[in-house]
Amino acid sequence: MENIFTDEYFMKKALQEAEKAFEKGEIPVGAIIVVNNTIIARSHNLTEMLHDVTAHAEMQSITAAANYLGGKYLKDCTLYVTLEPCQMCAGALYWSQISKIVFGARDEQRGFMTLGTKLHPKTTVVSGIMANEAADLMKHFFVSRRK
Amino acid sequence: MENIFTDEYFMKKALQEAEKAFEKGEIPVGAIIVVNNTIIARSHNLTEMLHDVTAHAEMQSITAAANYLGGKYLKDCTLYVTLEPCQMCAGALYWSQISKIVFGARDEQRGFMTLGTKLHPKTTVVSGIMANEAADLMKHFFVSRRK
Repeated sequence: MENIFTDEYFMKKALQEAEKAFEKGEIPVGAIIVVNNTIIARSHNLTEMLHDVTAHAEMQSITAAANYLGGKYLKDCTLYVTLEPCQMCAGALYWSQISKIVFGARDEQRGFMTLGTKLHPKTTVVSGIMANEAADLMKHFFVSRRK
Repeated sequence: MENIFTDEYFMKKALQEAEKAFEKGEIPVGAIIVVNNTIIARSHNLTEMLHDVTAHAEMQSITAAANYLGGKYLKDCTLYVTLEPCQMCAGALYWSQISKIVFGARDEQRGFMTLGTKLHPKTTVVSGIMANEAADLMKHFFVSRRK
């Protein structure tokens, strides 16, 4: 039997989170954290609602996953996030020693790859999973805001 | 009359926060945020107690100051922090558009200056204020942990 727990499977869950952000008028970024094929954290960007620049989807998922695990290191965990993490989120992921980061669309201006933020040597990165879907949601958001 | 509200005056307050972290067995870093000579946030590192890599002193002060101001941008605010901010905290400070960052001791390994984290163009940086006091507290902490 085929394994249903692919990167696409989990990125769809992150996209569902991004849609929740969109519906609230937040920049539509969603994230989940997975360990042993179990989702242990789900979150979406809440910077506007909370008036807090630190309320990115990734930051909330890191805190929630550590709370679930009872320890601050996210060993054997994978973060799925619809957009390339920024410097802040990549910096938090560095400290978490997370095993794997899977992101969707690139953020050419403010993404950690462009800006050269250092990740932990234990962390691998996969990019481009459902990138078009994630980028389309961002485009719709910014078009709707201009109206 | 001489102005008592110098960078040293406020850095002493940040050092008092760092001492609170030390007493709790946390890496001793403290931070405060000041606007118009008024302290609107005080915090110290709580990563061990909260099992959360995002619980750096700076992150807590950014969230607390935004909460106090009712908006996410830290315009006209100054962060005083005893140690050079890391990538995560500098990345959060980038988003906050904070006016000024004053830090004490350098973090040659994991500080944002070493790692090249980008700050907002509106942000100015002052370093080395009470650096010896901040560095001594860190040294005492790591010596006491080895015992």
